Amino acid sequence: MRLLRIRTDDGLRDAVLDEDDRVRPLPGAAEPFDLDRLRERATVAEPAVDFETVMLAAPLSPGKIVCVGLNYADHAAEGGQEAPAEPILFMKAADTVVGARDDVIIPRGSEKTDWEVELGVVIGRKAAYLADEAEALAHVAGYVLANDVSERHFQLERGGQWDKGKNSATFCPLGPWILTADEVPDPQAIKLGLDLNGEALQDGSTANMIFGVAHLVHYISQFMTLYPGDVISTGTPAGVGAGQKPPRFLREGDLLRVWADGLGEQHSRLVSANDRT
Amino acid sequence: MRLLRIRTDDGLRDAVLDEDDRVRPLPGAAEPFDLDRLRERATVAEPAVDFETVMLAAPLSPGKIVCVGLNYADHAAEGGQEAPAEPILFMKAADTVVGARDDVIIPRGSEKTDWEVELGVVIGRKAAYLADEAEALAHVAGYVLANDVSERHFQLERGGQWDKGKNSATFCPLGPWILTADEVPDPQAIKLGLDLNGEALQDGSTANMIFGVAHLVHYISQFMTLYPGDVISTGTPAGVGAGQKPPRFLREGDLLRVWADGLGEQHSRLVSANDRT
Repeated sequence: MRLLRIRTDDGLRDAVLDEDDRVRPLPGAAEPFDLDRLRERATVAEPAVDFETVMLAAPLSPGKIVCVGLNYADHAAEGGQEAPAEPILFMKAADTVVGARDDVIIPRGSEKTDWEVELGVVIGRKAAYLADEAEALAHVAGYVLANDVSERHFQLERGGQWDKGKNSATFCPLGPWILTADEVPDPQAIKLGLDLNGEALQDGSTANMIFGVAHLVHYISQFMTLYPGDVISTGTPAGVGAGQKPPRFLREGDLLRVWADGLGEQHSRLVSANDRT
Repeated sequence: MRLLRIRTDDGLRDAVLDEDDRVRPLPGAAEPFDLDRLRERATVAEPAVDFETVMLAAPLSPGKIVCVGLNYADHAAEGGQEAPAEPILFMKAADTVVGARDDVIIPRGSEKTDWEVELGVVIGRKAAYLADEAEALAHVAGYVLANDVSERHFQLERGGQWDKGKNSATFCPLGPWILTADEVPDPQAIKLGLDLNGEALQDGSTANMIFGVAHLVHYISQFMTLYPGDVISTGTPAGVGAGQKPPRFLREGDLLRVWADGLGEQHSRLVSANDRT
């Protein structure tokens, strides 16, 4: 099942994407993420409307967003970093989330706004102190495409922790949809990538993660409790702007196409905060 | 005005603490933090009940929690760190918040669970790219006592960013109440401290912050948007467990008393995750 959310005159609505790639809204207003409840409501979905013309929102409002750093060896290498011995964790605030067709805002004063295509993991069942990796995937509701937008100067050159460069408004495009885990036979076999103004700059596969999804869910659950609707953003493959030679960063008017097999595409236009706030 | 929340048979309720230190519930269920709306509802508060016997919840459910590291020179020094040139930021998830009388859970496998009394700043008005410090305090709704509970091994010795040691369940006791900003003539003149099993281990003043509240609100607004109900936890003075000689950490059965002038007291009992999950 593919779960999404749309903005309508009646407010935010949950919806499913049917086999003909058409949007079928679920009854009532959007609700906090609950996969069983979504499945139940989907049995009485409304008549289909066209995917291309709906106003897409992010497919959920996450509780928390836990991000994994340097989780692909080729990305660690392009930044001159060693592959980590255990997962590096940082956080994005849920208020940074936007939809798959929304603009991404370059912060005021930013010279180094960068991109990171990532596989997002949507938690479906509370996970605390999981005993082993074998039970981890049973806590995953589904997968979602994410762009971990990052300001490298804020992140790395302003004297502190990475969160400072990960939390500007609109820095977490999610969606277009959540693909439920029952339709993902192997989360470590998903191709994903990113084009900037039509030029392919990231082109990777979750097969190359250092720490796979089951490892990450088990690992994170030892340090914090994961709740339904939390999202883990699992790191990015090589090809970010900071890794280009010479480095390249986002400018007003740029267009990003972000994609992953089975998870759809994001189309994000870069705008300037100077024009927006 | 002192704003708090109580757990009742009818669910979570907003309330005010009156001049006789008695709790007056506001009509209806608890609502997302909105100071104007709370003031309006407080005009029709219900008859008073006893503060000591109510079931206290945290006084708000924050949107995001932005934490400031090493913001008192004496605390930086006790950890062998230089005072930072600009604020260090990290994050706690809102799901770590508990009330002022709730238990704090020592995570499984933890040897170094530590305490940090802090002044929490509750945002009242959206703040993005504030032009200067002079306008910053107008965006503050009030102040709240916080304990930035921290697992030092997870935070510092597990190969990554600090968030890993700041986000275990119950790691953010808040309250007992929010003191509205109109009753705080100078946020840089608040004494605050912490006792462990009756022994005073932290005893400081916000006068000794490296970066004061106005500076922090202005600064953070350049990197992320602050929304009503967001909380900034502004750093801790000297006297944390890791700074003791030899270092001391929390054990099951310990009792913390956390206090700040005008902001009330927290009484937290330490329990083991092994007994709880």
